[in-house]
Amino acid sequence: MPHPISTAFPAERILLGPGPSPVPQRVLRALAAPTLGHLDPQYLAIMDETCARLREVFQTKNALTFPVSGTGMAGMECVATNLIEPGDEVIVGVNGVFGSRMKDVMERCGATVHAVEAAWGDVITLEQLTAALAAHPHVKLVGIVHAETSTGAHQPLEGFADAVHAHGALFAVDAVTSLGGHELRVDDWGIDAIYSGTQKCLSCPPGLSPVSFGERALTRMDARKTKVQSWYLDVSMLRKYYTGGGGGGRVYHHTAPINMTYALHEALGIVLEEGLENRIARHAEMHLRLRAGLEAMGIGYVPKRSLHSLNCIHIPAGADDAGTRRRLLEEYGIEIGGGLGVMAGKAWRIGLMGHGATVRNVDLVLAALREVLR
Amino acid sequence: MPHPISTAFPAERILLGPGPSPVPQRVLRALAAPTLGHLDPQYLAIMDETCARLREVFQTKNALTFPVSGTGMAGMECVATNLIEPGDEVIVGVNGVFGSRMKDVMERCGATVHAVEAAWGDVITLEQLTAALAAHPHVKLVGIVHAETSTGAHQPLEGFADAVHAHGALFAVDAVTSLGGHELRVDDWGIDAIYSGTQKCLSCPPGLSPVSFGERALTRMDARKTKVQSWYLDVSMLRKYYTGGGGGGRVYHHTAPINMTYALHEALGIVLEEGLENRIARHAEMHLRLRAGLEAMGIGYVPKRSLHSLNCIHIPAGADDAGTRRRLLEEYGIEIGGGLGVMAGKAWRIGLMGHGATVRNVDLVLAALREVLR
Repeated sequence: MPHPISTAFPAERILLGPGPSPVPQRVLRALAAPTLGHLDPQYLAIMDETCARLREVFQTKNALTFPVSGTGMAGMECVATNLIEPGDEVIVGVNGVFGSRMKDVMERCGATVHAVEAAWGDVITLEQLTAALAAHPHVKLVGIVHAETSTGAHQPLEGFADAVHAHGALFAVDAVTSLGGHELRVDDWGIDAIYSGTQKCLSCPPGLSPVSFGERALTRMDARKTKVQSWYLDVSMLRKYYTGGGGGGRVYHHTAPINMTYALHEALGIVLEEGLENRIARHAEMHLRLRAGLEAMGIGYVPKRSLHSLNCIHIPAGADDAGTRRRLLEEYGIEIGGGLGVMAGKAWRIGLMGHGATVRNVDLVLAALREVLR
Repeated sequence: MPHPISTAFPAERILLGPGPSPVPQRVLRALAAPTLGHLDPQYLAIMDETCARLREVFQTKNALTFPVSGTGMAGMECVATNLIEPGDEVIVGVNGVFGSRMKDVMERCGATVHAVEAAWGDVITLEQLTAALAAHPHVKLVGIVHAETSTGAHQPLEGFADAVHAHGALFAVDAVTSLGGHELRVDDWGIDAIYSGTQKCLSCPPGLSPVSFGERALTRMDARKTKVQSWYLDVSMLRKYYTGGGGGGRVYHHTAPINMTYALHEALGIVLEEGLENRIARHAEMHLRLRAGLEAMGIGYVPKRSLHSLNCIHIPAGADDAGTRRRLLEEYGIEIGGGLGVMAGKAWRIGLMGHGATVRNVDLVLAALREVLR
């Protein structure tokens, strides 16, 4: 008879899957601080400081930078629903689950989506994008996934904005699995709208989606002829609460997830204490350390250009997918991810994100894999 | 020079506004438990138990009962976006801010909304609803706010479902400020879809919105001709994660707010330990105690039929609205709410919700008001 699973207190897992990543004790402690009201001056100060810290981590001066009250997919939907009007043509890079989702989300906003496709594991090239823009010159927005969590592919973004802006379109980026772990320069790279999640390289529990909108995006929103189809994610109202912008001062919209804001505030504090460059370098080092160990075991990578934060690897011939992951969880308390979409049963995903990207975890997961796979 | 507001650690407020309500230490401790993965068997067990507890509190057998990954307004949007298709006619009761919002949210879903209106502070009568249904016989859904947080009006619901179902329409209810503090019988009262929030009478931090859908609602969703416009809130996918329903077993949709689920699990445990009937009786008693104290001070209520969980009162002649609330906050650490919408500057809102509905808090806020108003 299987041992019943306790619901009384969660086990202390080592989270090396595609997210959530391990949460530092400091962040859990912040999460459990006394709940304030969402209009309390002290809460507004904490929220303002959280937004200021987000600007540093996004490397942007965008005033409209705040955490959406939902997980990463709510951020994707926030960007799509505010920047797209029914009938708009858009281009989306599709080379994995999250690009496919972006296409789906934008179609639900009434967009005609032209997909620029690459094989799973490959990235979208600037040449592909340029050709697509030439073929569809009336495109209003281009959406690309920076860190494709389903394949581990690391999408280059430098130079893309120039091509997009030359057509008068907006450049929107999914940075759920890269923010705080990879180089990502919102202003320098000309990104007009971006969203991320808290539970990846920021090492905060899931529940918020940091977003940032630049001037071009604001101009587009201000010129809308139709109401945003989502009330909950309507930036024309959210900006009045988060920045006091848009006229009329700070106005209540919805009750923000107070305690999650404390946790994000603390998690971002940790990122900035370490220093963004140091943190990005640490992610690169830990990726190389893991990669060397895996390749020594004969295990190869799915993507040609791998993320540092997420290692998508081929399941070795003869290995039992679910059985291996179950043994890692039960015997070692280590979570790694299975394959997603067409990669199900073919790939594992080992995340080294934020607080989880340590020598201790890399050497442990390698040792555990050696033991379980022998 | 004003004392700078610390962002280091939140003050211990006594939250007697319109929400969030005070969160018990047990719930904060659960919130800070180690983060599990969203597909971890232990997390799924905690989530399943959370949904089972929600069924008890909603007094329903509905399999599709789960917490939406957003605050209460996300729950409203989830109900609207899944049950409405563009062109549908619906009826909404409008007698305050949240009825007005429901109208707005449903219009954004493409509905033609027939508003049944009552003065702010009044409730919608069954006669009004019956007349509206007779005037608009093709209505697909009727939405009503059980607890109008802007006016404190307590909407009766008994008998409404029969009128709605006689026209083949669905009955949807906003129970954000009543769930866990007022009598609310989803199955007995024939409610087809309902949403609430965690931060009111459940005394959990904000961040999740419990929802429940009955068989008629599921049948309506299964018969949709159009995709739900929100991917994030699309129940046809969410049900596969939360119940394994709809075929194909349990499927990943989005990363759920893990730690918030722990908190809700614990908060619901506290509700069920106290007993739903005892808890509802406690809210009634504390309301009467507060009401007697306020009326002894000459302060009257805005609604004719007041909620127990939220007391919306007239600001006494000559009293300084913002100054009084500021003194309560600064001198006593007590938060009460100002008026919302047309009640701004005219009303205060004193919440006695969940963990906050105690003799200690009632007598304290009465004493503090007596002092500040004298």
